[in-house]
Amino acid sequence: MADARRVIATVCLSGTLEDKLVAAAAAGFDGVELFENDLVHSAWSPARIRRCCAELGLDIDLYQPFRDFEAVPPDVLRANLRRAEAKFDVMAQLGVDTMLVCSSVSPDAVDDDELAAEQLHLLAARAAERGMRIAYEALAWGRFVNTYEHSWRIVRRADHPALGLCLDSFHVLSRGGDPSLIRTIPGEKLFFLQLADAPKLDMDILQWSRHHRLFPGQGAFDLRGFTDAVLSTGYAGPWSLEVFNDVFRQADPRPAAVDAMRSLLLLEEQLGLPDAGLAPAPRLAGYAFAELAADEVSAPRLAAALAALGFSRTGQHRSKPVELWEQGDARVLLNRSTADESGAEGGAAIGALAVESADPARSARRAAAMLAPTLPRTRGPEETELSSVAAPDGTAVFFCRTGADDTTSWLSDFAATGSERDPGTGVTGVDHVALTQPFDQFDEAALFYRAVVGLQARPATEFAAPFGMVRTRTAADETGSVRLALDGTLVRRGQWAPAVRHPQHIALRTDDAVATARAMRERGAPILRIPDNYYDDLQARFDLPPERAAALRELSILYDRDEHGEILHLCTELLGSRVFFEIVERTGGYAGRGEVNAPVRMAAHRRQRLANGGWGTV
Amino acid sequence: MADARRVIATVCLSGTLEDKLVAAAAAGFDGVELFENDLVHSAWSPARIRRCCAELGLDIDLYQPFRDFEAVPPDVLRANLRRAEAKFDVMAQLGVDTMLVCSSVSPDAVDDDELAAEQLHLLAARAAERGMRIAYEALAWGRFVNTYEHSWRIVRRADHPALGLCLDSFHVLSRGGDPSLIRTIPGEKLFFLQLADAPKLDMDILQWSRHHRLFPGQGAFDLRGFTDAVLSTGYAGPWSLEVFNDVFRQADPRPAAVDAMRSLLLLEEQLGLPDAGLAPAPRLAGYAFAELAADEVSAPRLAAALAALGFSRTGQHRSKPVELWEQGDARVLLNRSTADESGAEGGAAIGALAVESADPARSARRAAAMLAPTLPRTRGPEETELSSVAAPDGTAVFFCRTGADDTTSWLSDFAATGSERDPGTGVTGVDHVALTQPFDQFDEAALFYRAVVGLQARPATEFAAPFGMVRTRTAADETGSVRLALDGTLVRRGQWAPAVRHPQHIALRTDDAVATARAMRERGAPILRIPDNYYDDLQARFDLPPERAAALRELSILYDRDEHGEILHLCTELLGSRVFFEIVERTGGYAGRGEVNAPVRMAAHRRQRLANGGWGTV
Repeated sequence: MADARRVIATVCLSGTLEDKLVAAAAAGFDGVELFENDLVHSAWSPARIRRCCAELGLDIDLYQPFRDFEAVPPDVLRANLRRAEAKFDVMAQLGVDTMLVCSSVSPDAVDDDELAAEQLHLLAARAAERGMRIAYEALAWGRFVNTYEHSWRIVRRADHPALGLCLDSFHVLSRGGDPSLIRTIPGEKLFFLQLADAPKLDMDILQWSRHHRLFPGQGAFDLRGFTDAVLSTGYAGPWSLEVFNDVFRQADPRPAAVDAMRSLLLLEEQLGLPDAGLAPAPRLAGYAFAELAADEVSAPRLAAALAALGFSRTGQHRSKPVELWEQGDARVLLNRSTADESGAEGGAAIGALAVESADPARSARRAAAMLAPTLPRTRGPEETELSSVAAPDGTAVFFCRTGADDTTSWLSDFAATGSERDPGTGVTGVDHVALTQPFDQFDEAALFYRAVVGLQARPATEFAAPFGMVRTRTAADETGSVRLALDGTLVRRGQWAPAVRHPQHIALRTDDAVATARAMRERGAPILRIPDNYYDDLQARFDLPPERAAALRELSILYDRDEHGEILHLCTELLGSRVFFEIVERTGGYAGRGEVNAPVRMAAHRRQRLANGGWGTV
Repeated sequence: MADARRVIATVCLSGTLEDKLVAAAAAGFDGVELFENDLVHSAWSPARIRRCCAELGLDIDLYQPFRDFEAVPPDVLRANLRRAEAKFDVMAQLGVDTMLVCSSVSPDAVDDDELAAEQLHLLAARAAERGMRIAYEALAWGRFVNTYEHSWRIVRRADHPALGLCLDSFHVLSRGGDPSLIRTIPGEKLFFLQLADAPKLDMDILQWSRHHRLFPGQGAFDLRGFTDAVLSTGYAGPWSLEVFNDVFRQADPRPAAVDAMRSLLLLEEQLGLPDAGLAPAPRLAGYAFAELAADEVSAPRLAAALAALGFSRTGQHRSKPVELWEQGDARVLLNRSTADESGAEGGAAIGALAVESADPARSARRAAAMLAPTLPRTRGPEETELSSVAAPDGTAVFFCRTGADDTTSWLSDFAATGSERDPGTGVTGVDHVALTQPFDQFDEAALFYRAVVGLQARPATEFAAPFGMVRTRTAADETGSVRLALDGTLVRRGQWAPAVRHPQHIALRTDDAVATARAMRERGAPILRIPDNYYDDLQARFDLPPERAAALRELSILYDRDEHGEILHLCTELLGSRVFFEIVERTGGYAGRGEVNAPVRMAAHRRQRLANGGWGTV
C-alpha cells in the first residue's frame, strides 16, 4: 500500500472531463476511473483523452460502469456482447485494461447464478482476447446479486483468469455487511477497490449512495476495518475513491480533489502504512492566540469591547499594526491592517488561529504532507519564524509556542506595553472558537482540521435557526484543550438571507458566568440582550431557583443542561459585520456548546443590526 | 369549509416572528399557529404579539407544540403540569385557546393507554378552567402512540370536553395510514387540522417530515381524499398548513406565504367547495406565442437565427419595437426593448409566454383569484387589451386568442410586413418551452402553473449534469397542447458555476428532424455540435440502422427511445447568455423530452462559450 496507486473516479468531481483531469492531476493522483458519461460528453476522442492523461501523469485505471450484463436470455446476451465489444474498442483507444461490470438491476435478468457465471465467463474470455479484464461488482441494490459474498461465489464459479471482483466499501458497509469475509478472497482475484464513506442515514440505499457519499474519514463507516481486510488478502491494485455527492458535484473540482487526496493519506496513516512524508500530529495544549483582522471602522469597536470584557492590551507587534490583548490564558491579536469585507458596519473577521504545539516544526511538516497550502509570510529581522497554513475557509492556522522564556515563542515579536494589567472580569482562557464554513467546504473542513491539526470531529447535528437549517459539528484534540466549532447551512443561502453571513466567534472561558457577566456589564461591555420570552420558557422547562433565574434574566445569560452538567453562556453584540465574543461557564462535564440557544442568539443579533440600521431584509 | 379559516403555522416561513406575521397577513391568511420557538426568540411580549396580530387581521389559532406530556410517573407529571400552567399563562396573554399536545417520544413515558388518558384528562381539566382546550396529536414517530386511531382511542377514553384530536395529514399519510376511519370521528372532537403534502421518499419518517414536507398539491399525498374524510365528520375548525421544508425555511417568507395560500385555494377547488372568486381554468389550445426579450447585442443574432431556422418576419408591433416571427403554428416575438441581463455575450431571455385560452377573460379572473400578480401594461390606442400575470420566476404569462378573424386577437396589434412567407424548414409549431427556475421557486412554480394556468405537473426526476445534479418536471394541459418544462438545481449553485445560469429554451416541433436539420444547416443555422463519442455510445446502446446512425451523427441530432416511441432532437448554440432553440421530432408517443441527453447538450454549450471566450471557470 505504501506504493499503492492513488486513484479517483471522475464522477467524484464537478465539471467537464478536462476540468476533472486537471484537478485530479494537480492533487497528485496517479490515475482515474473514467466514468463513461464523462467520456461521452467530451469532444475529445479517446485517443486524445489518453494523450491528455499521459501529459498530466495520469493513468486510466478503470472504465466504468458497464451495466445489466449477466443472467439474461440469449437475444439480450447477444446485444450485451455487441455493446461490450464497442466499449472494448473505446477502452483500447483509451489504453485502459479493466472494465467495471456491476450486478444487474435489469428486468431482463433472471435469478440464476449458473447462468450469470457462464455469461460472465464468456465476457471475460472476450476481454482476455484483447488483453483486458472484467471487475464484477455487487451493487447494494442489485436485483439478485447485492452482496460481495454473492458476487464472489459467481466469480469463483465462472472461473476465468480475466474475471475478478471489484469491492466498493459503500456497497458492503451500507448494507451492514461483514467485511471480515473479504479476508478469505485471494488478493489476485480482487481486481479493483473503490472507497467511499457516508454519514449514517436511514433511507433508501440507492438514494443514499447517489447523493450522500463522502470521502473516507468524513462519514460514519469503518473504512479502516474494511481496508484492513482488503490489505490482508495481498491486494496490490489501485485504491480508488468513488464518491457521489450533491455538493461535490457542483463545487470547484480543484479543492475537492485535494480533499479527496487528503482523505486517502489519512486512511493510509490510520492503517499504519509507511509514508515518508507523514509525521504524527504533535500533542496540542490549547490556543496560543486568535487573531482578529479589522478595518478602521471595526478596530476601535473591537479594542473598546476587549477592554470592557476585561482584556489588557499587553503588547504591540514590533513591525506590524497588531496589538496583543490578554486576560487569563486568553490571547487575542487585533490586527488593524486588514479585513475581508468592509462596509458601514465595519469589516472584521477571525483571520488566524494559533495552537500550542509540542513541536511546531513537526506540525508544519505534517501540515505540508497533508496538502495544507502554506501561506506566505513577511518576517522582520529578528522576528520569530512562524509559518501558517490556510484552512479551507481561508483562515490562517499557526502552530506555535507561547512560553515567555522560550526563544522560539511568538511573544518575542511583541514589545510589552508596560501598562498595568487589568484585574479582568474572570475570563480564564479560550473555551472554543466557532467558524461558519462556506457551504461547499463543510465536510472538507472537518477532514482538514483532523488531518492537518489533529482535531477529531464529532458527528454533525442540525438545528432550525430563524433563517434556515444549520448544521454544526465540534472538533477537539484528545485532551479537549483545542476546541473548534464548524457551522454551516443545510441549504446554501440565497438572496433572502437577512442572517449574518458566516458568523464567527471566540468563546471565552469563565468559572463564574454570573460574576463575569456582572463585571462586564459594569464596564459597559456590549452584551447581547436576550428577550424575556426566553427566560419565561427557560423557567417553564427547568424550574431554576428564583435567584438563579433572576440573575440569568437580568444579565442576558443563556442556559442549558444535559445529563452531565450545565452551561451558562452569554454573547456580545456583533462587533463588525460578523464577529462576536461569547463567554462560557461549564459545570459537571456539559459536553456541548449550548447549540439549543443558537437560534435565540441569531434572532437577537438580527435585531441588533436592524436597530443599528445595519441591514434590512435584503 | 367555504368559510373555513385559512391558517398557516409560523414554522412554515423563514425569518423572525415579525417577518412571518407580516407575510402571512399579506397573503390573506386568517390566522397562524404560533410555533413556540418563534415566540421564545421574539423580543415582543405575548401581549404585544397579540396586538400586532390583531392589527394585521390575524388570529392566533393554536399554540404549539407541547411535548412529552402523557403516560409518565407522578413526579414527571407534576413537572409537566407546572410546565403546562406556565404555557397556559402565555396563551392567556396571547389570547389563544387551543394548545397542541403531541404524543410522547420521551423515555419517561410508559405504554399505558389508561394512564395516558387519565393524565390527558387532568391536563384538559386544567385547560378548561382557563377556557382553553387541548388538541392531542399522534406523531408518526411517537414512542407508543403513532397513529390517529390510537390517539382517538385515548381521547375517547379520557372523555373530557376540553380534549380533542389534532389531525395532521403528514403523520397519517406518511405511514400509509387509511384516512377513511376519520369518518367515524365526531366533528366536534376534531379540534384542529394540519395539512402538509410530501414527495414520496423512502427514508426515516422523522427526517422526511423535518426536511421535505410541501404545501398541498406539491407532493404525492392524496390530500383530497384525506380532507374529504375530515369534511365528512362535520369538522368546522381551521384548515392550517404545517410544513417543515429546508428550502422554505431559508426563502423569502412573502412569496412562500402566497404559495401556501394558493395551495389551500387549489385544494378547496378540488374538493368542490364553493368559493365565489374562483372560475375553472378554461380549456387551452397550444401556445399563442413566446416572447424573447433581447438587448442590442443579442437581438440581431436572434433575428438571424430565426431566419436561418426557417422563420419569417411577418409582423411589426404598431407601437413597440417587437417583431412577430412565424413558421407553421410557431410564433415567436422578438422584443428589442429589454433584456434581463446584458453583457459581452448579449442579454436574452424568454420574457413572456402566451397560451391560447378558450376564454381569456375567465383565465385572467382565475389567475387573479389564484393570487397571480397582475403585471402592468401600457397599451396604445386601438390595441388589444392583453393582461398578463407574473410567474414565480418573473416570466409574464398571457392568456389570449390568435385567430386572424378574431377582433380580440393579439395579432391585430401587429402590422403585416407584407414580405413573402419563407417556405420554412418543416417546423410545425411549439413542442414545449423549458424554463429553469430559481432555486427557491421550484416547487412554487409547479403549483403556480397548475393553479393559475391549468397545467398538471408530473413528478420531478433527477439527472446528473456536468456541473451538478438537476431536477426536472414537465407540466401540460389535459390534451398536451401546452407543454412546459421546469428545471432546477438540486443544490443552489455557488461561485464555481461554469454552467449556463437559468438556461431557457423554446422547443419547436417537426415531423422530420433529419430533413429539418438538413434544411437548417443549409441555411447556416447555428446548430450545436455534438461530439462523436456520443454517437459511438448511442450506436453501442441502440444498434440503429447504419444510414440512420450516420444521419444523426452528421447533423448533431440527439436520440432516445422508450417503450412507446422515439425522440430525435437537436439544439442551437446559445443565442445570448442563456437562450437557445431546440427542434424536436417525436414518434409513437415518446413521453419525455430527451432528458437523458441534457448533460451532453450542457457540456456542448459550455464548450461553445469557452470557444467564444464568453466565460471561464469563474
